[in-house]
Amino acid sequence: MERSGGIIRVDYELMKSVFAGILLKEGFTEKDASKCAEIFARNSLEGVNSHGVNRFHRFVRNINEGFIKPGSTPSLLHRFGSFEQWDGNLGPGPLNASFATDRVTAIAEKNGIGIVTLAHTNHWMRGGTYGWQAAWKGFVYIAWTNTCPNMPAWGAKEPKLGNNPFVMAVPYRNEAIVLDFAMTQYSYGKMETYYREGKQLPYPGGYNKKGGLTSDPLEIMNSWRPLPMGFWKGAAFSLLLDILATVLSSGLSTHQIESCFSEYNVSQVFIAIAISHLQEIPAIDNSIRQIIDDLKRSTPAFEGAEVRYPGEKTGEIRETNLRDGIPVVKEVWEKITRLQ
Amino acid sequence: MERSGGIIRVDYELMKSVFAGILLKEGFTEKDASKCAEIFARNSLEGVNSHGVNRFHRFVRNINEGFIKPGSTPSLLHRFGSFEQWDGNLGPGPLNASFATDRVTAIAEKNGIGIVTLAHTNHWMRGGTYGWQAAWKGFVYIAWTNTCPNMPAWGAKEPKLGNNPFVMAVPYRNEAIVLDFAMTQYSYGKMETYYREGKQLPYPGGYNKKGGLTSDPLEIMNSWRPLPMGFWKGAAFSLLLDILATVLSSGLSTHQIESCFSEYNVSQVFIAIAISHLQEIPAIDNSIRQIIDDLKRSTPAFEGAEVRYPGEKTGEIRETNLRDGIPVVKEVWEKITRLQ
Repeated sequence: MERSGGIIRVDYELMKSVFAGILLKEGFTEKDASKCAEIFARNSLEGVNSHGVNRFHRFVRNINEGFIKPGSTPSLLHRFGSFEQWDGNLGPGPLNASFATDRVTAIAEKNGIGIVTLAHTNHWMRGGTYGWQAAWKGFVYIAWTNTCPNMPAWGAKEPKLGNNPFVMAVPYRNEAIVLDFAMTQYSYGKMETYYREGKQLPYPGGYNKKGGLTSDPLEIMNSWRPLPMGFWKGAAFSLLLDILATVLSSGLSTHQIESCFSEYNVSQVFIAIAISHLQEIPAIDNSIRQIIDDLKRSTPAFEGAEVRYPGEKTGEIRETNLRDGIPVVKEVWEKITRLQ
Repeated sequence: MERSGGIIRVDYELMKSVFAGILLKEGFTEKDASKCAEIFARNSLEGVNSHGVNRFHRFVRNINEGFIKPGSTPSLLHRFGSFEQWDGNLGPGPLNASFATDRVTAIAEKNGIGIVTLAHTNHWMRGGTYGWQAAWKGFVYIAWTNTCPNMPAWGAKEPKLGNNPFVMAVPYRNEAIVLDFAMTQYSYGKMETYYREGKQLPYPGGYNKKGGLTSDPLEIMNSWRPLPMGFWKGAAFSLLLDILATVLSSGLSTHQIESCFSEYNVSQVFIAIAISHLQEIPAIDNSIRQIIDDLKRSTPAFEGAEVRYPGEKTGEIRETNLRDGIPVVKEVWEKITRLQ
C-alpha cells in the first residue's frame, strides 16, 4: 500500500473512460464496463476514494485471479411474493448490487415493500452508492452485506465477525440522506485513507499485535483486531447482519468466506419501501427538514464542532470534484494507467 | 428512584395477576389487562426488569396523567400493497406493538415481506419482546421506535436525538436470536439498573454536567448527555431511525416528542420476512448453528471472557426465574402492590 505521495486531480470523465477501457480489456461487455466504471468513478467523485479509485487496481487483480467473473449476471433462485432470492454467480459486485437495487425498487413500486437477496456475489465497494440510487428514485432503502472475517467477537482475539456494512437511505431535497457504515469503529477503507495520508485515527480504533489499544491505522490493519463500534453493540449487530444475510440469501456466511485477501462470494440483502405511495415527496422533505433544522440548532460541545447529517456534504463534494477534478494519490493513478 | 435495597423473589404468575388487577382498575378490558400484564411480567421473567417490573409504576402513572389511553386500539390509516400505516391512538405501547407485530407477520405470511408502521403510539417497553414474538412464529424481524430527545448529536451538548431502540430477530432452535439495542452506549434502562445496584458503568458512558466523561450512571442520567454507541456512528444511526420512523409512519419525530418525563406519542416501524417459505427451519437452524459454533471457537481476549450471541441466556434466565421467582428490588414491588 502506497503511503501518501503527491495528490493530483483527475477529471471525472477521464477517470470513467480509463476504468471502462481497462474493464473492456478484462472481458466486460461495453455496457457492463461503462456502468462499472461509472460506479467506481462516482465513488471517488463523491469523496470515497477508498472504494473508488484506490480500490480499482485490486478489483482488476481479483478479476485476473478468477474471483470476479466478468459477464456473469444474477439469476433468480426462488421467489415468494415480494421476496426474491437471486444468485449473483460471482459477477462483479457493483453491477450485481446495482441490479438488485433496481429489482427491489421495482418490487416495492408494485407492492409497497420488497426484499431481494444476493447469494454468491462480490464486494459492492461503496454501499452508499445503492442508497443514493434507490433514494433518487423516491424509495426508502435498507441494505447490507456480509464480509470476510475481519473483526473479533467481543471479548475475543481473532477475527470471526465481518464488519458488514449497513446502509439506510431516504430521499431528501432532490438529493438523499444516506447512512453507510461498517461495524468497526473505523472501516478498513477509512483506516487505509488515514494511513495513506500519514495520519493517526482521532480515537483508538483497535488493538496492536501485542494486545494494546492503538490509534495507529497500520497496526490495526496488521493485527486484524479493530474495535467494534460501541464495543459489544457493534459486535452483536455484525453477528445479526451476517446471520440474516446468510439465511435470507441462502448464501455463505462470514465464517465461510475464507480469505480476506480475495474476499469473494459474499451475501447481501436489499429492502426498498415505496414511501412516495403513502406520502408526497414535498411532505417528506418538509418533515425531514424540520428534524434537520432542529438538529442544527444544537449548542456545539466544543469550539468548531459542526452537526451534520450523513451525506450532507456529498452533493458539494461532487460539484467541486466535477469542476476541479478528483483528488487522487499520484502513484495510485499511475498504477491504474499502466493497466491500460 | 430507589437505590438497591433488599432483593425479593416474586412468583411469575403472582406478578402477572397483580399487574392485571391494577390494569383492570385503570380501565383496561380483561383481555387487554391480561395481555399487557403478561408482557410486563415476561420482560422481568426474562431478566429485563428495567422494562418490566421496574417500569410498571411509571406506566400506571402515565395512564393517570392521560398520556396512555386504556381501551384505545390501532386503526388503519393507509395501505399500499404490503405496506400499512396504522394510528396507535395513544393506546398502551406494549399492546400496540404486539398488535403491529402480529399484523406484519400476517402480511409477510401472504406476501413474503411486510411493513407496518404505528404513528401516535406509546413506549413499547422492551423491544426484544416483539422480536421473540415474531421469531417464535418463524419470521425474520426488524423493528425500531423513536423516543424523546435523550442523546446529543455528535459534537453537540443538549439532547436532540433519541436513543431509538432497534430490534433484529431470527428463529433459532425453538428459541430465537434477538438483538435489541438503544443507540446510546448504555440504555437509560441499563444505567438505571447499574444505579439501583450501586455500581459504576464498566466503560465511560457519557458526560457529567461539567462536560467531563464519566462512568457514573446517575451523573449521566442527570446531564442527559450519554455517549452514542460508536460515537458519530450511533448518532447518525439514531438520526436515520428517527427520520425513517417519522416519514414511514407519518407520525411525530423525536424533536416533536416534547418531554422525556411523559415520553408519549412515538413512532414505530415493524418489518417481517417469511423466511420459512424459502428455507426449511431445520436448514436455517443448521446454518446459524455453524456460525455460532465458529464464533464460540474464538480465543478469549482476556481471562474469563465468554463469547455469546444476543438472547443466548434468555431461555435459561426464564427457566430459573419461573422456578425460583423473579428477583425484584423489595421497595419496587411494595410500591406496586400499594396500587392494588
